[in-house]
Amino acid sequence: MKILVLHGINLDMFGLRDPDVYGTTTLAEIDRDLHALATELGVTLESFQTNHEGRMAERIHQAHRDGDDAVVFNPGAWSHYSIGLRDAVEILKVPVIEVHMSNIHAREPFRHHSVFTAICTGQICGFGVESYRLGVRAAISAALRAGAR
Amino acid sequence: MKILVLHGINLDMFGLRDPDVYGTTTLAEIDRDLHALATELGVTLESFQTNHEGRMAERIHQAHRDGDDAVVFNPGAWSHYSIGLRDAVEILKVPVIEVHMSNIHAREPFRHHSVFTAICTGQICGFGVESYRLGVRAAISAALRAGAR
Amino acid sequence: MKILVLHGINLDMFGLRDPDVYGTTTLAEIDRDLHALATELGVTLESFQTNHEGRMAERIHQAHRDGDDAVVFNPGAWSHYSIGLRDAVEILKVPVIEVHMSNIHAREPFRHHSVFTAICTGQICGFGVESYRLGVRAAISAALRAGAR
Amino acid sequence: MKILVLHGINLDMFGLRDPDVYGTTTLAEIDRDLHALATELGVTLESFQTNHEGRMAERIHQAHRDGDDAVVFNPGAWSHYSIGLRDAVEILKVPVIEVHMSNIHAREPFRHHSVFTAICTGQICGFGVESYRLGVRAAISAALRAGAR
Amino acid sequence: MKILVLHGINLDMFGLRDPDVYGTTTLAEIDRDLHALATELGVTLESFQTNHEGRMAERIHQAHRDGDDAVVFNPGAWSHYSIGLRDAVEILKVPVIEVHMSNIHAREPFRHHSVFTAICTGQICGFGVESYRLGVRAAISAALRAGAR
Amino acid sequence: MKILVLHGINLDMFGLRDPDVYGTTTLAEIDRDLHALATELGVTLESFQTNHEGRMAERIHQAHRDGDDAVVFNPGAWSHYSIGLRDAVEILKVPVIEVHMSNIHAREPFRHHSVFTAICTGQICGFGVESYRLGVRAAISAALRAGAR
Amino acid sequence: MKILVLHGINLDMFGLRDPDVYGTTTLAEIDRDLHALATELGVTLESFQTNHEGRMAERIHQAHRDGDDAVVFNPGAWSHYSIGLRDAVEILKVPVIEVHMSNIHAREPFRHHSVFTAICTGQICGFGVESYRLGVRAAISAALRAGAR
Amino acid sequence: MKILVLHGINLDMFGLRDPDVYGTTTLAEIDRDLHALATELGVTLESFQTNHEGRMAERIHQAHRDGDDAVVFNPGAWSHYSIGLRDAVEILKVPVIEVHMSNIHAREPFRHHSVFTAICTGQICGFGVESYRLGVRAAISAALRAGAR
Amino acid sequence: MKILVLHGINLDMFGLRDPDVYGTTTLAEIDRDLHALATELGVTLESFQTNHEGRMAERIHQAHRDGDDAVVFNPGAWSHYSIGLRDAVEILKVPVIEVHMSNIHAREPFRHHSVFTAICTGQICGFGVESYRLGVRAAISAALRAGAR
Amino acid sequence: MKILVLHGINLDMFGLRDPDVYGTTTLAEIDRDLHALATELGVTLESFQTNHEGRMAERIHQAHRDGDDAVVFNPGAWSHYSIGLRDAVEILKVPVIEVHMSNIHAREPFRHHSVFTAICTGQICGFGVESYRLGVRAAISAALRAGAR
Amino acid sequence: MKILVLHGINLDMFGLRDPDVYGTTTLAEIDRDLHALATELGVTLESFQTNHEGRMAERIHQAHRDGDDAVVFNPGAWSHYSIGLRDAVEILKVPVIEVHMSNIHAREPFRHHSVFTAICTGQICGFGVESYRLGVRAAISAALRAGAR
Amino acid sequence: MKILVLHGINLDMFGLRDPDVYGTTTLAEIDRDLHALATELGVTLESFQTNHEGRMAERIHQAHRDGDDAVVFNPGAWSHYSIGLRDAVEILKVPVIEVHMSNIHAREPFRHHSVFTAICTGQICGFGVESYRLGVRAAISAALRAGAR
Repeated sequence: MKILVLHGINLDMFGLRDPDVYGTTTLAEIDRDLHALATELGVTLESFQTNHEGRMAERIHQAHRDGDDAVVFNPGAWSHYSIGLRDAVEILKVPVIEVHMSNIHAREPFRHHSVFTAICTGQICGFGVESYRLGVRAAISAALRAGAR
Repeated sequence: MKILVLHGINLDMFGLRDPDVYGTTTLAEIDRDLHALATELGVTLESFQTNHEGRMAERIHQAHRDGDDAVVFNPGAWSHYSIGLRDAVEILKVPVIEVHMSNIHAREPFRHHSVFTAICTGQICGFGVESYRLGVRAAISAALRAGAR
Repeated sequence: MKILVLHGINLDMFGLRDPDVYGTTTLAEIDRDLHALATELGVTLESFQTNHEGRMAERIHQAHRDGDDAVVFNPGAWSHYSIGLRDAVEILKVPVIEVHMSNIHAREPFRHHSVFTAICTGQICGFGVESYRLGVRAAISAALRAGAR
Repeated sequence: MKILVLHGINLDMFGLRDPDVYGTTTLAEIDRDLHALATELGVTLESFQTNHEGRMAERIHQAHRDGDDAVVFNPGAWSHYSIGLRDAVEILKVPVIEVHMSNIHAREPFRHHSVFTAICTGQICGFGVESYRLGVRAAISAALRAGAR
Repeated sequence: MKILVLHGINLDMFGLRDPDVYGTTTLAEIDRDLHALATELGVTLESFQTNHEGRMAERIHQAHRDGDDAVVFNPGAWSHYSIGLRDAVEILKVPVIEVHMSNIHAREPFRHHSVFTAICTGQICGFGVESYRLGVRAAISAALRAGAR
Repeated sequence: MKILVLHGINLDMFGLRDPDVYGTTTLAEIDRDLHALATELGVTLESFQTNHEGRMAERIHQAHRDGDDAVVFNPGAWSHYSIGLRDAVEILKVPVIEVHMSNIHAREPFRHHSVFTAICTGQICGFGVESYRLGVRAAISAALRAGAR
Repeated sequence: MKILVLHGINLDMFGLRDPDVYGTTTLAEIDRDLHALATELGVTLESFQTNHEGRMAERIHQAHRDGDDAVVFNPGAWSHYSIGLRDAVEILKVPVIEVHMSNIHAREPFRHHSVFTAICTGQICGFGVESYRLGVRAAISAALRAGAR
Repeated sequence: MKILVLHGINLDMFGLRDPDVYGTTTLAEIDRDLHALATELGVTLESFQTNHEGRMAERIHQAHRDGDDAVVFNPGAWSHYSIGLRDAVEILKVPVIEVHMSNIHAREPFRHHSVFTAICTGQICGFGVESYRLGVRAAISAALRAGAR
Repeated sequence: MKILVLHGINLDMFGLRDPDVYGTTTLAEIDRDLHALATELGVTLESFQTNHEGRMAERIHQAHRDGDDAVVFNPGAWSHYSIGLRDAVEILKVPVIEVHMSNIHAREPFRHHSVFTAICTGQICGFGVESYRLGVRAAISAALRAGAR
Repeated sequence: MKILVLHGINLDMFGLRDPDVYGTTTLAEIDRDLHALATELGVTLESFQTNHEGRMAERIHQAHRDGDDAVVFNPGAWSHYSIGLRDAVEILKVPVIEVHMSNIHAREPFRHHSVFTAICTGQICGFGVESYRLGVRAAISAALRAGAR
Repeated sequence: MKILVLHGINLDMFGLRDPDVYGTTTLAEIDRDLHALATELGVTLESFQTNHEGRMAERIHQAHRDGDDAVVFNPGAWSHYSIGLRDAVEILKVPVIEVHMSNIHAREPFRHHSVFTAICTGQICGFGVESYRLGVRAAISAALRAGAR
Repeated sequence: MKILVLHGINLDMFGLRDPDVYGTTTLAEIDRDLHALATELGVTLESFQTNHEGRMAERIHQAHRDGDDAVVFNPGAWSHYSIGLRDAVEILKVPVIEVHMSNIHAREPFRHHSVFTAICTGQICGFGVESYRLGVRAAISAALRAGAR
C-alpha cells in the first residue's frame, strides 16, 4: 500500500517562524516522523510540498496515474478557495483524507469552510502534528476498506 | 488516564436498522472495540449513551467533578442545535474531541455546522467506526500534552 | 394495519388554556375522536404524547421495532429545531404524515420551516383538529400504497 | 354546498406524460373521482383548469360573484410567483385549501415557498391524487365551520 | 397630448368587493373621473384594463406604435414579478408614471419592491383613487418637459 | 387648513450648485412656488429647512403642538437612516406625505429604502420640483379625508 | 403575590466551577438571597432548576394551573433555540421577566438573539446575580400593574 | 429531424424599436435566416412567438405530443420568473437549448439567473442573432447524440 | 456616588402625546421620581435630555471629565444607528446601563439591535418608567462593584 | 483572422480519466478537431493549456501584444475565483468567448457563477466538445463584427 | 492652494483620554503639526472640528462656496451612517481624501464599510496621526492633477 | 532601513495597455521613481513583480528570512481571493502597507473587500502612482515606530 502526503502553500515555513509559538518542528521532521509511522504500520509513504497551485494539481494528476492507494492532504490556505485543486482531487478514485494542524472551525469565519471536505473521505483538524499521524491511520483504514493491500 | 466516550441522541439505534446499509455493528460492539483499544494503549475508558439532553448535560457535569482526562464526544444530531450541551462542554477544562461517523460536511447543508467544534480541541469525521478509534488516540495525545498521565 | 399518532411538546395543554380562544376540546378528546375514526375505517390506532425529546425519540425507535404501518406526527414546536427527532423519524421505513393544527406558514417566520417535512410523506396544516383526521386518512392511504394491509 | 376545484398551469398534462413514472391517471379521471367523492359526501363540486393566469384570475373573480362555499386550489408552478393570483384568492371570503400532489418541501428550494399558503386556510401536500381527496374533505369541514350548508 | 392609463391584474374587481372596506367606487367610475380631469386639463386620456400579462404587453407595444405622450401605470400585483411587462415598458420612449392606490411600502415585505420603479419616471403610492389623479398631473408635467404638446 | 412643508439636510444648497445639471431654481423659489399654489388652492402653507436632525425633530414636535393639518416632508439623505426623525414623525396624528425630487428607487441601492415610508400616508418621487407640488395636493386631499377643513 | 423563579440548563453548576472567574456563589445561595429579598418586599417566591426541557415545560404548565403572579426566567442556553419552552411560556397569562447574568449581546453572535424576548414583558441582562434581583423587582412591579395583589 | 424555435414575451418587437441601437432586423427576418440555415443543414425547422405564458406552455405541450427532436428557446424576460414554463419544458424528453441575444450575465443582477438553465442541455448568450444560429447547431448536435435522425 | 441619567431624541415629548396610550407622566415627572429614588438610596443623580446628537456627545465627554460614577442611558431611536454616540460612550470608564421603556425586541425588526448594548454593562427594557428605576439600581450596584463610593 | 483557444486548470486530464464516463477523447484530439474546423472556416487557430494561473495570465498578455482577433476561453475551475485571470482578460480589446463543456448552471451552486462572464462577449455551456466548436464559430462571428478580417 | 482638514464627531477628545493607550497628542497638536507640514509644502491649510452633523454639512457647503482646492476628511464614527454628510461631500467638485487614524478594516465588522469612500478620491487608514500627514500630501497631489495651483 | 515593494498579478502590464486611459508610465518607471524617493529619504528599496502566487509566497518567505524592515504590497487582483498570500504575509513581523492605484471601494462590489487589509498596518488606495509613494512614506514611518533604523 502506498500513501501520498501532500502539504500546501506556506507549509514549508512550518517550524521556521515564531519558535516560541509554533515550536521548532520543521516540515522535514514531520515527514520523517510520518515515514517512521508508515514503516511501523507496514506501508509505503511519500510526501510532497509546493507553494504553486499548478504544480500541486499536476502532482495530484500523477497520483492518479501512479495508482497511489490513498492521499493525506493538508491544503493550507488553498482550502478556502482553490476549486482548481478541488477538481484535481475529484479525479482521484482513492480515499483522500483532509487534515489541518489547527482547528479551522475555531479560527476566522472565512476559514470555517473548506472547498475540499465535501469530496474527501473525511476531515481531521485541530491536533497539530498529530493530525497528520491520525490522517495516515485513517488513510490506511480507508484504503483497506476500498480494497487496497 | 481516564477517557470518557459520549454517544448522543439516536446512536443507541446504530446497527439495529438497515443492516445492509449500515452493517450490523451495534453500539455495544463499538464500545467493546474501544475498550480493547484503550486496554492496548494503557488507558481507562468509560462510555455513555443517552437520548436525553438533560441527562447528557448532567453526565458532562459529572465528568467535570470526576476529573476525567479527556472526552470523545459524538453528539449526533444535537451537533446542530444543542447550545445547552455546548455550554456544558465549555465547563470542562480537559481536551474534548468531537467525532462523527459520517462526513457531516458532505451531507445536507444544515449538518455542515456543529455548535461544538469551535470549543473542542478538534474534529474527526467521515471514517465510520474508525472515527471513534482515531478519536481515542487524539484524546490520549491531547491529554498527554495537557499534562495528564 | 396499525397507525401511531404522536403529539409533541406542550400539546398536553390543548384545551386546558384560553377556552374562549382554543375551545375546550382536550387532547384526550382528540385521541378518542381519532380512535373512533380508526374503528370506522377498520384500522388499529395508538396515540402518545410527551414533552421530553428523548422520550419521543425512544417511542419512535420502538415504532421501528414494532413495525407500525404509518405514523401521524404533530411535532409542535419541535418542528423548528429538533434535528434529533428528525433523525429518529428518518429511521422509520413507513409513511410519516406531518400534521399541524394551525397553518404554520401564516404565523411568525420562524415557524414557516419544519425540519421534518422534507423526510415525511407529506404535510397537512391549518385545519385544527380536522388536521389529525385528514392525517389519519392520509396515513392509511399511504400505508396501503406502501403495501400494508 | 358548492366546492370549486381549480387546477393551475401544466396540470392538463397529468397522466399524458411518462406513464411509468406518474401513472396513466389523467386530470379528467381525477375530476371524475372527485365528483364521485362529492356525491358521496352530499356536496356539489365543479372543477376548472387553465394554463392562463388571467383566465384563472377571472375564474376566481367569478367564484366570488357566484358565492361558492369553498375552493380547493392546486396552483401548480404558479405557487411560487403569481402574486396576481394570490391577490385574486385574497378577494374570496370563503375557505381556500391549497393542495399539491408532490411534497413541495422535499423538492428544489425554490418550490419550498408558496405565495398562497399564508392566505389559505391550510395546505395539504405530498399524497398524490389523494391530496385532492383530502382537500375536498378539508374544504367541506372548513365551509361547515364557516357557516355554509 | 394623449395620456394612456393602464390598470393591471384584478383591478377590474375594484369596488365590487368588501364595500365597507374599499368603498363602492368602481374602476369605471375611476376612469370617468380621470377623463373629467383630463378634459379639465386639456388633454386626451384613454384607459385600459386586463388580467392577461400578454395582452397588457401588447397594449404597451401599441402605445409605442401610437406615439402616446405619457403613460400612467398601476401594475397591481404584477409590480412584484412581471419582468415581461417591465421589458415592455422599457420599450417606451415617453414618461411612464407608476401609481398604486395603497402604500406598498407599508404592506407585506414582498410588496415593498416593484420591478417597474427603476425604469419609470417616478412613483406615486398611498393616496387611494387620488394616486391616479396625481399620476395624470405628473404625466402631463413630465410629457411637457419631454417636449410633448 | 394649514400645510407644513419640511426640507431636510443639504436641501438649502438646491440651485446653488451645478446649474447646468440641476438648473438654477433655488429652495427659496420652490417655496415661493408652493405658497402660490397654496393660495390658489385656498390653504395656508409654511415651509422650513434645517441641516440639524435635532432641530428638525423639534420642528416636528411643534407641528404636533400647533395642530398643523398635514405635512409634506422631503427628508433628503436622512430618509435612509434617521430613525430619530421617523419617531418624531410617528408622533404626528395628521397625514404626512413623503416626497423626493429624484426617483430614489432608480439610484444607488442604499437609497431604495426610506425609513419613513411605512409610517407616511404615501410617497411621491421622481418628478423634480413637481414632486413638491403633487405632495401639496396629496396633503390637502388626505387632510380633507381625515376631517380637516 | 407569588413569584416563580426558573433557572435553565447548566445553571445548577453555577459557583461550582472556576471559582476565580465566576466566584463561589452557588445557585442555592442565589435562591436564598432572592427569598430574603422577597420577604423584604412582602411577596412569596419559589425557585426551580432543571436541565430537562420537558421537565421545565411541565413546570411552566403547572405555574399556569397554580395561577402564579409573575415569572422570572433565566433560560440559559435554551434562550437561543428552545421554541418548545417559548410556546410553554406563551401559555402563561402573567408577566414573564427574562434575565441573564451575562450581557448576551456582548458575547458570541449566536447568543444575541433569544427566542423568548419577544413574548416576555422585558429583558434584564449583564448584571450578574444582580440581574435576578432586578428581575424580581420588575416582576412585582409588572404583576401589580397587571392587577395582582 | 425537426427543430422547434420558440420566442418569448416582447420578442415580436425586435427590430421595430430603436433601429439605431438594435438595428432593423425583425423577428420575421431572424426566422427566415434560421429556416435557411436549417435547409442548409438538412433539418426541418418551425418557429413560434407569443406574449402569453399560457399559450407558450400549450405550444410546448404540443411539441411533446408531436415528438419534435429538439427545441431552441429564447424565453426573454420569462427567464427570470416563469416557473410555469420551466415545468412545461421539463415535460419534454428532448434536448432544449436556451438562447439569449444579450449576455444576461452582464446586465442587471436580476437577469443573471434563469429558471430554465438547470433543466436545459446548455445555454448560449451574448451573440445577438448569432445566438440563435449557434443554438440551432447545438440543437442538431444534441439531438443526434440523443438518437434523433 | 453620582449617577448621570441621559434621555435621547424625542424623549422630551414623553407624556405630551396620546395621553390615553402612554399616560400623562412627563419626562420632568420621571426625573423627579428618579431624584427621589436617588435620595432614598443615598446617591446624587443628575439628568439630561437633548434631541441633538452632537450635544449628547459633548455631555458624555463632560461626564468623562467630571468623573461621574455611572450612567443610565436611554438613547431612544439613536440606539439603532448613532455610532457617533456609541464611540462617545466607549470613552467612559464607568458602568453604563442601557434602558428602554418599551421591549425593543418585541417591536419592528430594525429596533431589535442596539449599537450600544455590546459596550454597555447591561440592558434593561420593557418595563416602562420602571426601566429607569431598575436602571438606577443597576447603576449603583455596578458602580459599587467598580469601586465607587 | 487568428483565433486563440485557451484551456485552464485540469483540462489536460480530459479523456485520461474515467473513459466510461467522459469518453476517451483527449485534449489533443479536441485541439486537432478545432484546427480542422478553423481550416474549414478559413481562419488560423492556436491553442494553449496550462495548470498555472501566472502562466495563463502571461499567455493572455501575449495575446494582447500579438493582436489575436478573438479568444475562446475555457477557464475550468478558475471560472469561480481567479479574479487575477479576469483582470488579464479585461486587458484584451477583442471578443472573448467563455465556453464550458458541462452546463455549469446545473451543477453545484458554487459553479453557477463565473467571474469571467460579465466581461466576455458571451457564454456557451453544456454541449461537451461541441461547446468549443460553437465557441470558435461565435468567435469568428464576433471578430468579424468587430472589424477583424 | 488651500487645503481644508475636517475632523468629525468625538475627535475633539483625542489625546484627552487613556494617555497610555492613545498617547497624549491632542487634536490641537495634530492641527499644529499639519499646519507646519502645509507651510513646508507651500500650501494654505485650515482645519475644523465639530460634533454636530448639521454644522459639518454647512462647513462643507461653505468649502464649496469658498472654492477650497482639496479636502482631507476624517469623519470618525459618521463614516458608517451619515449619508447626509456623504451628500454634502458629493456637492464638492474638488478632491476629497478620506483618512482614518485606525485601520477600520481590522476593527468590528460594522466599521469596515464607510459611506464616504466610494465618492472620495481615495482612502488612507491605519497609520495614526501619520494618516493625516499622508492625507495632506495626497490632497496636494490630487489637487495639482485636478488643475489647482 | 530596507523597504520591499511587491507588485502582484498583471501589474507588469501597467503602462503597456490603453495609453490614453492609463497613461504610458510603465512599472519600470514606477520602480525608478520609488528608488529615487527612497534615496531622497535615506532608505534602501527593492521591488519585485510576479504573476505566480507560489513565487510571490516564496518571495515573502525570503523577506522574513532577510529581515526586511517594511513591505509595500499591491496585491492586484489577488487582494480578493488569495488567502495563500494572506497567510504568507501573516508570517512577517514587520509593517506591511497595502496599496492600490485605484479606489477599490468605488469599483465593482467584489473588489471592495481585500483579504489582506485586516492583517496589514493600513491601506492606501485611489491615488494612482502616488499611492505607492505614500505607501513608501507610510512604511518608513511605521518601521521607525516599530524600532527599525
